[in-house]
Amino acid sequence: MKLYTFFRSSASFRLRIALNLKGLDHESVFVSLPKMENFDSEFTNLNPQQLLPTLVDGDDVLIQSMAIIEYLDETYPEIPLMPDTPSKRAYVRAVSHGIACDISPLNNVGPLRYLENEMGIDADKRQAWYEHWVKKGFIALEALLVQRGLSGKYCFGDQVTLADICLVPQVFNAQRFNCPLEDYPTLMGIFSNLMELKPFIDAQPDNQPDKV
Amino acid sequence: MKLYTFFRSSASFRLRIALNLKGLDHESVFVSLPKMENFDSEFTNLNPQQLLPTLVDGDDVLIQSMAIIEYLDETYPEIPLMPDTPSKRAYVRAVSHGIACDISPLNNVGPLRYLENEMGIDADKRQAWYEHWVKKGFIALEALLVQRGLSGKYCFGDQVTLADICLVPQVFNAQRFNCPLEDYPTLMGIFSNLMELKPFIDAQPDNQPDKV
Repeated sequence: MKLYTFFRSSASFRLRIALNLKGLDHESVFVSLPKMENFDSEFTNLNPQQLLPTLVDGDDVLIQSMAIIEYLDETYPEIPLMPDTPSKRAYVRAVSHGIACDISPLNNVGPLRYLENEMGIDADKRQAWYEHWVKKGFIALEALLVQRGLSGKYCFGDQVTLADICLVPQVFNAQRFNCPLEDYPTLMGIFSNLMELKPFIDAQPDNQPDKV
Repeated sequence: MKLYTFFRSSASFRLRIALNLKGLDHESVFVSLPKMENFDSEFTNLNPQQLLPTLVDGDDVLIQSMAIIEYLDETYPEIPLMPDTPSKRAYVRAVSHGIACDISPLNNVGPLRYLENEMGIDADKRQAWYEHWVKKGFIALEALLVQRGLSGKYCFGDQVTLADICLVPQVFNAQRFNCPLEDYPTLMGIFSNLMELKPFIDAQPDNQPDKV
């Protein structure tokens, strides 16, 4: 397998965790987002969406982190990343998409650049935008986890799932942007538990060879 | 089943299509987004994310359209909405998430309101923002569909899948915002084919009882 990744990309971070959890060997190819290497023709030919991560597994060129992780879970089912019933999977996917659809797309490098370059938004207002979506998303997720009562050491009991894989990179990002996180004791307790696990530690931005 | 929906919500539109395709009977509860009924305490108690759609199926309260549709496909597998191999499902999910993660979150009512109310962005710049994410997303999806060569009458051959369920509401929204769409012949050809199907026609905003 060949993983196209950037140390600070949240979606790449998700996939690095999933590959580590499943113990899947892979070669890494580093694509710098600040250097805009994702817009190079070679990478664009591989992934027309020009987004990270991208995973090549045999003849399959896989794109979109959430789609890739579902693929890995279906193809390499040992150490499952999903619960064993449709109802529980719906909960895990709901938590996951509450991050992957409702927080990260708004706080990605693309929209932040657009706010700055096309709209002339200053740094304080960009920061407020960033914090707004983290706050809105995390308030909802904290309430959801408390309401459902399905969390334990992790988002779903004591099983590490896709929800945890989405949570950790989002918390890293929120910390990097100095977002207040004291109002989410459930989420942050789970985050602390997860960051004791080697697959998560090894996947974090600071531990990547392309860290600058 | 009880569906909480709003006629113009793209995510509700996705779920209406899925329910129609599978022929699943349901009662509709209308939640007006302009009247901010999604922030009422009764609805918030049901769905702490305060987002549409929400589906109640027996004891299960299901949230997040993509998670709900995967649940429906697992629970009611007749008339599948996904292909039959992990590799093909990865393609369908990638197209789906290219819309559900990379276009709609940025053009939802929440961010558009924030740009207007918190950032004082004028109507022309809001329109440019809207068009930018549609254009960026659709260029990538058009290229992806052409590159992969897996599309036919629909995004995946002649089988209606989750990708089509995501595509149609996004095109409706783009048309409502007068986005140019002539550069996406593959996507728009598929859209036309889909809009000949009764489950899609019946689910469209104009055909909902809560249309205002």
